[in-house]
Parts: sequence; structure tokens; C-alpha cells
Amino acid sequence: MPTYNPPLRDMQFVLHEVLKVSDEFKALPKHAEIDADTINAVLEEGGKFAAEVTFPLNISGDTEGCVLDKSTHEVKTPTGFKDAYAKYVEGGWAALSCDPEYGGQGLPFVVNQCFYEMMNSANQAWTMYPGLSHGAYEALHAHGTDEQKRLYLPKLTSGEWTGTMCLTEPHCGTDLGLLRTKAEPQADGSYKITGNKIFISAGEHDMTPNIVHLVLARLPDAPAGSKGISLFVVPKFQVNADGSLGERNPIFCGGLEHKMGIHGNATAQIVIDGAVGTLVGQPNKGLAAMFVMMNAARLGVGNQSLGLTEVAYQNALAYAKDRIQMRSLTGTKAKDKPADPIIVHPDVRKMLLTARAYAEGGRAMACFCAVLLDKEINHPDEKVRKDSAEMVALLTPIVKAFITDNAWAATTACQQVFGGHGYIKEWGMEQFVRDARINMIYEGTNTIQSLDLLGRKILGNNGASLKKFGKLVAQLVEAEGVNEKMAEFINPLAYLGDQMTKFTTEIGFKGFQNPDEVGAAAVDYLRVAGHLVFAYFFARMASVALKEIAAGNTDPFYQAKLQTARFYFAKLFPETASLMRTARSGSKVLMDTDAVFA
Amino acid sequence: MPTYNPPLRDMQFVLHEVLKVSDEFKALPKHAEIDADTINAVLEEGGKFAAEVTFPLNISGDTEGCVLDKSTHEVKTPTGFKDAYAKYVEGGWAALSCDPEYGGQGLPFVVNQCFYEMMNSANQAWTMYPGLSHGAYEALHAHGTDEQKRLYLPKLTSGEWTGTMCLTEPHCGTDLGLLRTKAEPQADGSYKITGNKIFISAGEHDMTPNIVHLVLARLPDAPAGSKGISLFVVPKFQVNADGSLGERNPIFCGGLEHKMGIHGNATAQIVIDGAVGTLVGQPNKGLAAMFVMMNAARLGVGNQSLGLTEVAYQNALAYAKDRIQMRSLTGTKAKDKPADPIIVHPDVRKMLLTARAYAEGGRAMACFCAVLLDKEINHPDEKVRKDSAEMVALLTPIVKAFITDNAWAATTACQQVFGGHGYIKEWGMEQFVRDARINMIYEGTNTIQSLDLLGRKILGNNGASLKKFGKLVAQLVEAEGVNEKMAEFINPLAYLGDQMTKFTTEIGFKGFQNPDEVGAAAVDYLRVAGHLVFAYFFARMASVALKEIAAGNTDPFYQAKLQTARFYFAKLFPETASLMRTARSGSKVLMDTDAVFA
Repeated sequence: MPTYNPPLRDMQFVLHEVLKVSDEFKALPKHAEIDADTINAVLEEGGKFAAEVTFPLNISGDTEGCVLDKSTHEVKTPTGFKDAYAKYVEGGWAALSCDPEYGGQGLPFVVNQCFYEMMNSANQAWTMYPGLSHGAYEALHAHGTDEQKRLYLPKLTSGEWTGTMCLTEPHCGTDLGLLRTKAEPQADGSYKITGNKIFISAGEHDMTPNIVHLVLARLPDAPAGSKGISLFVVPKFQVNADGSLGERNPIFCGGLEHKMGIHGNATAQIVIDGAVGTLVGQPNKGLAAMFVMMNAARLGVGNQSLGLTEVAYQNALAYAKDRIQMRSLTGTKAKDKPADPIIVHPDVRKMLLTARAYAEGGRAMACFCAVLLDKEINHPDEKVRKDSAEMVALLTPIVKAFITDNAWAATTACQQVFGGHGYIKEWGMEQFVRDARINMIYEGTNTIQSLDLLGRKILGNNGASLKKFGKLVAQLVEAEGVNEKMAEFINPLAYLGDQMTKFTTEIGFKGFQNPDEVGAAAVDYLRVAGHLVFAYFFARMASVALKEIAAGNTDPFYQAKLQTARFYFAKLFPETASLMRTARSGSKVLMDTDAVFA
Repeated sequence: MPTYNPPLRDMQFVLHEVLKVSDEFKALPKHAEIDADTINAVLEEGGKFAAEVTFPLNISGDTEGCVLDKSTHEVKTPTGFKDAYAKYVEGGWAALSCDPEYGGQGLPFVVNQCFYEMMNSANQAWTMYPGLSHGAYEALHAHGTDEQKRLYLPKLTSGEWTGTMCLTEPHCGTDLGLLRTKAEPQADGSYKITGNKIFISAGEHDMTPNIVHLVLARLPDAPAGSKGISLFVVPKFQVNADGSLGERNPIFCGGLEHKMGIHGNATAQIVIDGAVGTLVGQPNKGLAAMFVMMNAARLGVGNQSLGLTEVAYQNALAYAKDRIQMRSLTGTKAKDKPADPIIVHPDVRKMLLTARAYAEGGRAMACFCAVLLDKEINHPDEKVRKDSAEMVALLTPIVKAFITDNAWAATTACQQVFGGHGYIKEWGMEQFVRDARINMIYEGTNTIQSLDLLGRKILGNNGASLKKFGKLVAQLVEAEGVNEKMAEFINPLAYLGDQMTKFTTEIGFKGFQNPDEVGAAAVDYLRVAGHLVFAYFFARMASVALKEIAAGNTDPFYQAKLQTARFYFAKLFPETASLMRTARSGSKVLMDTDAVFA
């Protein structure tokens, strides 16, 4: 059976020693008083919750799955899920970074980021139930009417109700412009919504008395395509003015999907048969409102894969130390045993270090992004808010796609460490792989993320946002360039930073002549960009570690960090060489293929 | 629901136009009469069997799985499996490449290779039942006594009985030297075998009245480690001298594993409680006898992944043509539809072409290897037999590891083409991914394959075998070097061929000083070697296609082959640049990591 230990030490390192979040928070009136001890205490408790309450339900939830009672349209979640949720609400975990105006604790997003990383390590399927609520909360908080906020936000904040995002329909996923669900205006200002949605995560369950569905639909006079989509809040049970539950709304679970993984989460087909809803934001501006949810969700998906990478790594490491098989290539190591533990083998270490480096790099990047989100929302200086928002926008597709692709490689590698046992359910490794797979697909496939990055976020503003990140890289290179011990980290970073500008210009130029050049290069480009960000953070982390070691700190943590950074630059970073070649090889070999696909 | 069309045209191309197998067979007395029409007719029928009989059972077999009756130790296979097996035996498919002396049809191995590719596309889990018999057949054919051959080979040839390989125990997989199962000699010359085996594929089932287990065990006086292992044949039911079934042997299924995939195959825990067996080959020489099975099995595993790559590709292609979503980046293509089919998008084509190129490259390599196997066994000239055996030995770990790693990438990419639908069981794509995963693990993990390749097959004979393959490359480069149209294929091949020598020498030199250097480089090295082989075959295939086109052949097949080769060199082959860098970065960053793993 797998185990999980919250990586609190590494979180503390990233938050306090690398990002120095307390300094950042001093500039944010809402968080000026939050110190490291408070953050650490919350994360320690959060880690306990994850390890003790939801982690033990991970394998059983996968095995048991969710069951729909077709006669009542009610879904029974796996044994223990409902109780765990009650504890989650009772512990106030739902409210962590929510607005105090609606009962939230008002903690910075980055604390929630770390808490959710642990929750995702512990049980991705379970964590999606409260996780999806965040999107609904954010959308209503940003775009809801006062009445909507009054009715829904306190319940979403407390966790008393959960929320969903009802976007996808059978014929439209990526292309929401095709959606057909209809909203008919009623005399009382409400709308009657009718249509069919699929792939609705946490779309129906038995954990809360109500579910707040946020539904994309078309008004009768809406223009065609994505400019005619509006957002509605459609609760499972209508909500009376006093907040009590009213009539059951005809928004039903029509079926549950049989999936590769995340079996503990109810992925619902939702039949909406004239359900009563109210408009969120402006008519026909639903996509804009939806993007508030979507961006949060994309960061959340990256975080899911970060969690899976960490927990897979921990278990593979334990197995590699425990399992004895063959002797080291350099001679017997465990003389008292009939064979050496498999961690003596270079390739076993390579698989473990791959996962570890992906976890540590991902954690640094995701926390950096979450702090930017805090600054985007709460910094008093508008320019800082704008700059932070721009950087979050740039990093969001990288967090989503790079971390989720890395997690696929990492969980697969960790499963491989177990040999045949990795293929057996009881060991838990194959579940991490199956669960990790969805993260590359939902909330915009990783191809879509790459087009968002290269097409919109980079070429869309002539590389301005990328230049801002490039400035951070340049500053680090300048600051550390004189430090000989940092050369092994700074040189490849500086090299890639330089290359990146040329590389981007080149693709931009080709793309201007032929947009397919952007589509052909985007996926490779995103991975190169991901490595630029990882190289930047591994260099920063190595710098902190070197300083501590130089100052006489003997905590082996710093030595470990340094070795992981060295591994990263030696074994993972060089992927950029091939990626730039394949990106540069252009679109012709892809598009001149009519004979192939005839 | 997925579909499957046997890739007969591409098989014919590889067999007759690239490898010119009929010419090769003319030199083999046993196969001198076999012509292209015969081979094509067999494969056409074989393809029908795969597509019509076992393919329809693939998803249902996965869903239903196998059930063990603990009271009788009998296993019920999924509905339809037993009937399909009866048809398989009735059709004579088990006997395809078996020795006519025991009732076989005596067809070349390469025909069996192509037939089994189709069977693996259709249903890997089902195909493992007869597939495992081949190993048992080969081991008994090579090392059995006359009596063992008389009793078992006709039944294994007809398929009346199946066979297994009982190697792994709970504490030993890779390291068979640790195994504990015991064999006690009996007065009548037989042995009583006692021990526990796990992960026995097709280890128990209801398809045949008897199962022929080949079991590794230790004699009482056996030396410790891998030099004290002997091989025994231990039938489920003892076999009387007249071939009729005798007593039930106490070799029982104690449990079935719950696995990530191949649910239709019974992966059995086997309890052996004083079962009667007979020795195969020499005492304490079991590993050598076992390697006969193992090598065949390794090629078979590569073939499993080749089959999965092909079927995943076919279904992703069909979906990409059918599913409409978004418009092409270069403007509307399907004016009559609300969106364009997703095949207009460059990255969708990239995913499809990745799978296609891996399938076509893998097919060429695997068929080449199978023809070598035919020559190894049947060529009248001993030198040719020896050279062929050497080349098969070199290619076996590449076929196993390169094709199975590629299939993981390819099936994952094909699943990605489906977006969210790829994660849903009914579409069948996620099953291809789950089934493909085991192929990287069993019959020697891919790390073990890489050590076998680099340590034993290449450095073990100072690169002599590699040089022989290098000679084939050099011959092609010389023959085609003057052909301008071939430059795009020949130049990168020639470049990698040159690099490979230097690269190998370098690692060999480092490995001589520190064996961990071999362990650190081996996995990357194997992928580079795989690309050398693929580049060689794509160049050969492109050459054939160019000649046909030049001769006025308008079959679009040749254009497609050319475009796939171009894609391969532009988008997949460049991975070698990074792989050589990471391989060269050495073992230090992996092994100087005590602080990391403390």
C-alpha cells in the first residue's frame, strides 16, 4: 500500500527561502500580517488532513467508483468520501483563500496552492469535488450580481455546497462556439435552460445538499459562435430568498462515464430540462466570465499533476530502497543481503530523479505563479497588478501543459521502478498514472495550451510578456554570472535565454506567412519555454542552497537540492536541443501529407 | 467502438518490396518453395481471423476480466474467449510456423510475425494465451528429450494445449538467481516441484484441457545463484505414455492479479505443491534453456506493442477525420460544416504521424529480425546462420524496448487526438494505452534490455555486432549517396552512423573505468540505436518508394511512404541529439546523490 508524507520542508524552502513570500505579502494590505509561522502551521495541518483523511480513500475510491441510481438521478460516491468531505468543511479547509466578506479565511492563494498540491497527492478524484467549487466561486465572485453573491458565495465558501462548470457538450469540447444548450428568458428575469452537457466533473454526488452548476448556454437572440454564449447559475435545488432550499431543479445526472482513471470522481452527463437559472455577467459575454473559472482551473490541473508526481516519487523511492534485486554494476553494496537494493542502479536513480526534479521544478513554478496571482488581485499599485496578471497569463499554459506532460513521464517512470508490481493495482502506482492521464486532456488539451502560449500569449503581443520573463532571467544571470560555483547552472540558462529570443522571432516570422507554422511548432515551443522557467528556478534554488552551504549550514536538504539541480541540467534540460530542432523543422512535413491520410 | 483493418498492403510492401523475402527464402531449403502469393493469402486469412474473431472481444474481455473459482482453482476467461480459441485451433493458426515433424505448417517465422502483429492489434490479452505457448514450444523443441517432444510438441503445435513460462517469484523478477522453488528427484527419474510463482501470464484458463507449465526451480544440490537453476516441464494434468491425460498435478492458480490492463489475460499466482515434473535440458542449465523462450518472448513483446501502435493509429485517424472542432489556422476548410475536421490542425497530424511512423518503422525492423531468425535456423551455410543469430541477438533488445517505449508514446498520442473521449472506456483508446504499459515491463524491463544491448551485445564483443549493422548502413549510404533525391534520408542516417561509432567508443571507454557509466547511458543509448535502425529502414523504404514513383507508379501508397519517412526524419529522429547529450553527461549526477535519497 502506498504512503504519503507532505513535502513541507520543500514547500517552506520554496515559499520562504526562494520566493520570500512574507516580503511580498508586506506590500499587500490584505496579507501584510501573514508570517511564515502562520503559513507553515496551516500547511502542516493541511498536510495531516491530506495524509490522514483523504489519502486512505484513494485506492478504495478508485476500486469502488461512483454509482448512479437511475431512478432518482442521485450518485453515491465511494465509501468514506462523504465523511471526509464533512471533515473538510468542519475544518474550514474550503474557506482557506476565500473572501472574508463571505466567510472566507482570506489567506493568500499560494497557501491554497500548497494545500491543494497535498490534497492532489493524497486523492485527486476526491479533491476534484471541492476543487471544482473554486471555479464557480471565482466566477460568481468576479461576475455575479449582489443577489447571486449573497445566495451562493457563503455556501461555496464554507463548502456547504459545491460547484461545477458545465461547458462541454457531446459535439463540442474545445470549440465552445458550437454549443447548443438554450436559455429562454422568463417574465421574472430568470431563464429556463435546456440542453445536454457531458464530462461534468463532480457533476452529481451525495456530499452536499446542493450543487451550484455554472452553465454555458445561448440566449434566443444570441449571435452564432463563441460571441453568443452566456453564463448561468443553475443550482440543483433552487434557492429561496432566505437561502433555504427550494424546488428540485430539472438538472439531472443522466449517466456516469466509465473512465481510465479518477474513478472516485463522478464525471456526469448532465441533462438540463428547463431548469431555472439566473444570468451571470452580461448576455453573450459568457466566455469571458467562464475564462475566470478556466484560468483558475488550468492552474489547478497543473497542481493535480504536481501532486501526483510527488506522491509517485515518494513511493518509488521507498520501493527502490527496499526491493533487493541484482548487484550493483560496481560490485556488491549490501554484503549482508542476497542482492542489493535496486537504488544502486544508475537508471533507477535516473527515473527517481526525473520525478523528483519535475516535482521540485513544478512546485517552484506553481508557487511563483500563485504569488503573482495574489499580487494581481491584492497589490495596491495598479502597474504591479497589471504586470502580475500578464505574467500569470503567460505562465498559466506552461503550468498546465508542462507540469501535466512531465507528470505523465514521471508517474510512468515511478511505476517502472516497481517492475511488474507497478502494473498491479494494490501497489497504487498504476492509479497515479491513470489519474495523471486526464490532466493532459481536460481544461483545454495540452495542444490548446501550447497554441494559447505561442499564438496568444507570446506572438499575440510581439513577445512583450516573454521579454518580461526574459528580464528576470537576465537579472539572475547578471547577479550570479560572477559566481563561479553557479556557472554550471547559469551558463545553460543564459544560453537558452538567448536562444529563446531568436527561436521565437523565427517562428513568429514564419507564422506570419503561414499560421500553420505556429500550430506545428507550438507543442515543442511550450516544452522549451517550460524548460526556460524550470532552468530559471533550479538556478535560483541552487543559488540559495550554495549560499546556505557556504554559510556553514549542514542541513543535507541543501546538498540534495544542489544535486537535484545538477541532475536537472544534465539529464532533463538537454531535451531543449531536440525540441528546437523539431520545432524549426516546420509545418510542411505535417501538412503535405494528403497521401498519408487519404 | 474501435475498428481494425489489417495493414496488409504495408506488410506486403515490407516483405516483398523492401526485404524481398522470397529471394531470401530461395536460399533456405525448408522455405524455398514459398512465394509471395502464399504468404499474402495466409496473411489475408490471418487478418480476417484477427479482425473478425478476436478483435470484437477486446473491449468486452477488458471489462469482464478473468474470474478464479477459489474452490476448484479453475479460471473462467471472458465470454467468447474459449470459442475464439477453438476457432483458432480449428483454423490451424497455432501451427503456422511450427515444425512439420510435430504437425506444424512449417511456414517462415516472418509470416507468424505478421500474423501475430495483427492478433496483437486485435486483442493483446487474448493473444497472450496462444502466444505464451510459443515459448514453451521453442524451449521443448530446442532442449526437450525425445519423450518430452513426443508427449508435448504435437499438442502445443495443434494448440490443443497451451504453455506457460513460470519464472518470477514474489521476491525475484529480474534477478532469477534468487529463486527458491525446489525440485526433488524421484526414484522414477521425475521430480517433485514445490514453490510459489507469480505474474504467470495465461497461467490458468478454461480454453484447453491441459496447460504445459515450464518451471524454473532448484535441485537439492544446486549451486547458489543463477548457476543453480534448472528447467522443468510440469503439466497441469500429468500425461500418460499414450498421450492421454492422467492425474491432476498439484500446480494450482492461487490467485489472479488485479492489473492496469490486459484484463482478459489471467495473470496467475501459481502454487506448486509437490507437482510432478521432468527435467528439460541439463541440470543447473535452466537459464540457458529459459533464454530460448525469453528471446522469443522479447521479440513477441515488441510485436505486441507494434500491434497496439497500429490499431491506435487507425482509430485516431478515423476520429480526426470525423470529429469537427474549430477552424483551420489557415482559414475554413469544410465550408459546409460548422467547424473543420480536426485533422486540419498541424499538431493533430503530428500525433497521428508519430504513431504511423512508429508503426511502419517497427514493422520493418521486426520483420527484418524475423527473416534473420528464419536464416538463423534454416540457412544451410553455417556462417550465415551464425551471422544471422548475432544480428538477431543485437536487435532483440531494440525490438523489445524501442518498440514498446514508442508504443507508449504513440498510443498516448492517439488517445490525445480524441480529447476527453480518449479517456472514456467505450472509445477503446485508453485500453490500448493500459495494455501497452505492461510491454515496457515484462520479459525484462526496458532498462534491462538497454543493459543487455549496451553491456552485453555491444561492449561485450567490442562493438563487433554493431559494426556489422554499421556495414549495412554504410552499404546503403554508398549505394544511395549519389542519388540527390535520397539526400534528405541518407544524410542524417550517414551522420548518425558516424556519430554512433564515436559515441559507443566513448561510453565503452568510460564504462571500462566505471561500470556505472554503462548503466547511466544505456537507456539513452538504446533509443539512439533504435533510431539508427529506424533511419536505416526509412531510408530503404523511401528508396523503394522513390524508384516506384520514378517508374511512373501512381499508387498513392508510395507517396504516403515518402511523406511518412520525411516526417520521421524531421520530427522523431532529432531526438537523438538530446539523447546523445544526456548519455554523455555521465553517471556522476546520478550516483552522487546520497543526500537526495537520504
